[in-house]
Amino acid sequence: MAKFYLFIGLLTGIFLDSHAQQMIVTQSPNRAITLIIRNTGSGEITYQVRYKNKPVIEPSRLGFVLNKPPLELTRFSIVSADSSQKDETWAPVWGEVSQIRNHYREVAVNLQDKSSSQIALRVRFRLFDDGIGFRYEFPKQTALNHFIVADERTEFRLAANHQTLWMPGDYDSNEYLYNTTKLTEVDAVVAADREKDTALKSIIGPNAVQTPLLFKTADGLYISLYEAALLNYPVMHLQLDKKSLTLTSQLVPDAVGNKAYLQTPAQTPWRTLIISDKATDLLASKLILNLNEPSTISDPSWIKPQKFVGMWWEMHVGKATWEKAGGKHGANTQNVKKYIDFAAKYGFDGVLVEGWNEGWEDWFGNWKEDVFDFVTPYADYNLDSLTAYAQKKGVRLIMHHETSGSVTNYERRMDAAFQFMVAKGINTVKTGYVGRIIPRGEHHDGQWMVNHYQRVAEKAAQYKIMIDSHESAHPTGLHRTYPNWMASEAARGSEFNNAPTLGITPEHTTILPFTRLLGGPMDFTPGLFRFKLNQFESTRKQQVRTTLAKQLALYITLYSPLQMAADLPENYERHLDAFQFIRDVPVDWDDTKVIAAEPADYIVIARKEKKGPNWYVGAITDENSRTLPVKLDFLEPGKTYEAVIYRDAANADWDTNPEAYQIDRKTVTSLTTLSLVLAKGGGCAIQFVRR
Amino acid sequence: MAKFYLFIGLLTGIFLDSHAQQMIVTQSPNRAITLIIRNTGSGEITYQVRYKNKPVIEPSRLGFVLNKPPLELTRFSIVSADSSQKDETWAPVWGEVSQIRNHYREVAVNLQDKSSSQIALRVRFRLFDDGIGFRYEFPKQTALNHFIVADERTEFRLAANHQTLWMPGDYDSNEYLYNTTKLTEVDAVVAADREKDTALKSIIGPNAVQTPLLFKTADGLYISLYEAALLNYPVMHLQLDKKSLTLTSQLVPDAVGNKAYLQTPAQTPWRTLIISDKATDLLASKLILNLNEPSTISDPSWIKPQKFVGMWWEMHVGKATWEKAGGKHGANTQNVKKYIDFAAKYGFDGVLVEGWNEGWEDWFGNWKEDVFDFVTPYADYNLDSLTAYAQKKGVRLIMHHETSGSVTNYERRMDAAFQFMVAKGINTVKTGYVGRIIPRGEHHDGQWMVNHYQRVAEKAAQYKIMIDSHESAHPTGLHRTYPNWMASEAARGSEFNNAPTLGITPEHTTILPFTRLLGGPMDFTPGLFRFKLNQFESTRKQQVRTTLAKQLALYITLYSPLQMAADLPENYERHLDAFQFIRDVPVDWDDTKVIAAEPADYIVIARKEKKGPNWYVGAITDENSRTLPVKLDFLEPGKTYEAVIYRDAANADWDTNPEAYQIDRKTVTSLTTLSLVLAKGGGCAIQFVRR
Repeated sequence: MAKFYLFIGLLTGIFLDSHAQQMIVTQSPNRAITLIIRNTGSGEITYQVRYKNKPVIEPSRLGFVLNKPPLELTRFSIVSADSSQKDETWAPVWGEVSQIRNHYREVAVNLQDKSSSQIALRVRFRLFDDGIGFRYEFPKQTALNHFIVADERTEFRLAANHQTLWMPGDYDSNEYLYNTTKLTEVDAVVAADREKDTALKSIIGPNAVQTPLLFKTADGLYISLYEAALLNYPVMHLQLDKKSLTLTSQLVPDAVGNKAYLQTPAQTPWRTLIISDKATDLLASKLILNLNEPSTISDPSWIKPQKFVGMWWEMHVGKATWEKAGGKHGANTQNVKKYIDFAAKYGFDGVLVEGWNEGWEDWFGNWKEDVFDFVTPYADYNLDSLTAYAQKKGVRLIMHHETSGSVTNYERRMDAAFQFMVAKGINTVKTGYVGRIIPRGEHHDGQWMVNHYQRVAEKAAQYKIMIDSHESAHPTGLHRTYPNWMASEAARGSEFNNAPTLGITPEHTTILPFTRLLGGPMDFTPGLFRFKLNQFESTRKQQVRTTLAKQLALYITLYSPLQMAADLPENYERHLDAFQFIRDVPVDWDDTKVIAAEPADYIVIARKEKKGPNWYVGAITDENSRTLPVKLDFLEPGKTYEAVIYRDAANADWDTNPEAYQIDRKTVTSLTTLSLVLAKGGGCAIQFVRR
Repeated sequence: MAKFYLFIGLLTGIFLDSHAQQMIVTQSPNRAITLIIRNTGSGEITYQVRYKNKPVIEPSRLGFVLNKPPLELTRFSIVSADSSQKDETWAPVWGEVSQIRNHYREVAVNLQDKSSSQIALRVRFRLFDDGIGFRYEFPKQTALNHFIVADERTEFRLAANHQTLWMPGDYDSNEYLYNTTKLTEVDAVVAADREKDTALKSIIGPNAVQTPLLFKTADGLYISLYEAALLNYPVMHLQLDKKSLTLTSQLVPDAVGNKAYLQTPAQTPWRTLIISDKATDLLASKLILNLNEPSTISDPSWIKPQKFVGMWWEMHVGKATWEKAGGKHGANTQNVKKYIDFAAKYGFDGVLVEGWNEGWEDWFGNWKEDVFDFVTPYADYNLDSLTAYAQKKGVRLIMHHETSGSVTNYERRMDAAFQFMVAKGINTVKTGYVGRIIPRGEHHDGQWMVNHYQRVAEKAAQYKIMIDSHESAHPTGLHRTYPNWMASEAARGSEFNNAPTLGITPEHTTILPFTRLLGGPMDFTPGLFRFKLNQFESTRKQQVRTTLAKQLALYITLYSPLQMAADLPENYERHLDAFQFIRDVPVDWDDTKVIAAEPADYIVIARKEKKGPNWYVGAITDENSRTLPVKLDFLEPGKTYEAVIYRDAANADWDTNPEAYQIDRKTVTSLTTLSLVLAKGGGCAIQFVRR
């Protein structure tokens, strides 16, 4: 094998090795990553990835099974290979940084099926300094027009039995806790059975896991396996063969078992590997975004990052209900008015109102098609007076479109629903897909739903509406292409703090940035200030497993351009000094520095506000207390800053004393090093105000 | 058993027979039909039907299987029975008669599940003089709200091995020829295999047949088994048990195998038996219409029966194509202009234009979702100039919405499509559902599609648009409730005259009125004048199996308020004298008399034009020539009429001399008897003009 690595030229070519096999070798711009593509002689095409001479992916096969035409596309001739490079910088509409460099070397391998089909297939690889992406492309050709994918046969053969952060493979839910085991110790069925609070599970099998998947190797590598630009194709889950340590793509089927209906020219999403020997670099990677297409919105001036409060946690803690029946209806005019007053008083942009519209009495669990019409408020909710009141106060309502999974119904009504929003002056909508999908037999993660999410993003853009989608498929960087699709849930969010069994563990938020957030912003809804949830129901035993200071730090460590202050107004008013941080923290940034991080342990991130001199730091830990040094060398040299430090009190502890915090003020410069002491389940949030 | 029939009182009651079984006996207004309902003691509820003391349905069970809640609803207590009568007359918006009498005795049997579920179920029977209808009703109740039907267990046990007219049970197609066999000789798989020209088949099994089903008993009864008011429920097919001569309901499943999603109060369609000892009475029955709800359209003044020509048969015979690629695009501006000229010259209301819009290049067979957008004409079709031209000429274009079975796509775009029609001044649309349905896994005959057809009818009514649906589920009298849903195909229509194998047999049109047409008007598209179909393609061997005179008679025997003159203008201009009948024949009637009829043999029908004195007669035969006497006693006594008789020439024969016809004129009165001589595969059409 050694001679392969002698070839590190800037150009790529096809070579014959000693066994007369075709071979292509190429490297990332900084040469850290090497890709080797081989034709095994029998026509199997494999790819292999190494990082600084350490194995990442052992030779792994590529291919497809079609069922129309019925054909295995697993043996090919390599016809040619095209190599190119790109180095560009682009500016996102909003985000963690104001400029993103897209620097890669590319090789496109043109294959032809060895059977009589004559079908041409291209595999395009992009090698970045921090990872690799590849996708299949079916060019327009006479041999293939419309076709149906029965299976994708992409393998990821790992070099060793890595420590793995994984969730059960599930066609309908990604709202699980992560599990940390050796790869061979994955048992998705057992893990899923532990999850009593997930409303809908479609578990694939004991050895099926979902992406993003995170490996930590014994030789010090962090490897994230994920996908980018998920469009017109189902989500890729993975089937694990424990003997060969091989993961194989498991696409989400439709109602009749097919995976994707395509027409040439067609392409799959990118299959991605982010690779680093530093956990902090993994968090800072822009590989997923770079593999997405540029924005389709030519004038994005109406797209505004925002902070909001809302009628939501009240329902989760049992103070109010979504439905009107029962006498505890939360979204009544008076109650929402209080939220508008609160938002106006403390400078929030929006007020989310769930349970505003008719249909909640039997919305869940019936697989009912005509659930909501998205335009009929409950009788006790005077939408017109509230929108006028909100406008007067300089606040906007945020619309809620819960579909109950009845997507045919939503698609029929979507134009009317968006027109209704425009007429009411509402330009942000939280969509929801709780429950089993209609069309029945389709899954949240299938091609049909992936196309639906795209249709929503595109139609919303026509109406200049921003989207925050819940229960949608995992995000894959599409917010580059559709920057009005601001955030999604697509993971276990803060609502699970109310769940009776597993809830949100202290480590969960230290894992999300290494996994789910690699694909895009999450509407996690941080900012809880009260942790014993029996405040409204004496029988409720749940406790939020966090300190108050950690809740503040989450606004930094879990990036989103839409951030909710999730708790009740009265809970914030008990701690107005701490609440000040939530009022101050931006949701759009010029720069981001990942200072320290270890998956499932801790994260420290610094961010610089958009178009301003001030910096913010968030630091969180898992169930262990720890002390983390933070060098402030990201601050502008020679300038003085006031650091407002929101930290765990000395006796704070997520379990026994979660509300104990302390606010310190210090004068610091870029030469200062702070030592952050985090309680068990704790955190620290800092605002650096330039003098 | 004899003593049951001693009870023929006007009121219905619950009685105990000698075995202490509960029993309910009731009769039709004229006492011809007797219904006996029994509780077998074990809780099985059976119904039994007799006609003039002849058995129609032997004791047959009723019931359901639910899968949510998981429950067999097959054993009940009879709680009570409510009896009532109705005798009313109503006027349809259009139709075969101007007044319809709705006269029945009703008994509603209130049942309670014998298991612990406490579920209440009602079976409502309506006894008309010409048949019976019954449906299940699930009242609103605390014991049942949302539920899922796994199976309906309605039995129809026949008394003998009747001669049966049947089609293979199929979830997606009703475009079969009928088979005539003894009931025990049904083999749906063999029958379906013979049908090479049906594009999409979803055959249920060898013993599954579809309704309407027609029996002729050895003791002289005609029995039609069908359904009425098919809304929010799948089509009922039937599974045959040959040993017990029992047919059991086989509902069409959805993508996951469920049959219906219902919420109380809910009801099934009516299960219907039209029963007569006269075949002519069966054809005249209004039972199906009477079991439907009154019109939902308060001002139906915009709904107009119409005759039309169009860009359609050209494609079937190979002169032109729907798609633009290939150079034979039919729907180009010049060509359609000719049709408008022709329609204007000969007094037709409309011009149907198929192939007008982009998407036909790959519309079929790919299960493609985004096929048509319904608003984008091909570049060679100047819709705006044509609508202006048509308006100037006093003609309207008829829109064509072929969905390619991609119903999710159509539903997304339906509002825009109808708005487009309104903007262009087009108020009739032919819809089409060729191919496999999207949502994938759904069937043409399933609950989801049944709801779709209803949505189309309702939305079209909002836009004052008339519907002519093709490839939709069989009609069940819904044109009473939705009179803008003028006609549907839902059977093997004249387009199959172009089919290479079985085509349209001469007997097919003598069967349709006894089966398919009992449910509603059919857009059969009669009026072919040229029968050797090699006129445009020398390789084409098909021949239309009819005489020219029979094609004229079909305008009477196959009722529809939308009738096409299907052939090419040039073929009509070769026979302008015969074409005159098509120009003259109305599409809306004040009265209808079925003069003579025998299923699969012949039909003679007389109709009186709407608001005018003239009568029309159509007579058709199967492959046999025959002479049929027709007494003209339906004419107004004491008046003289000129009869214009379009008849087969003496040497006419569908096979050897189909175009040979003769036009006779006679002066007749109500005392005249005509003797109609029909050639093999022939017919006769008569216009009676009052002097």
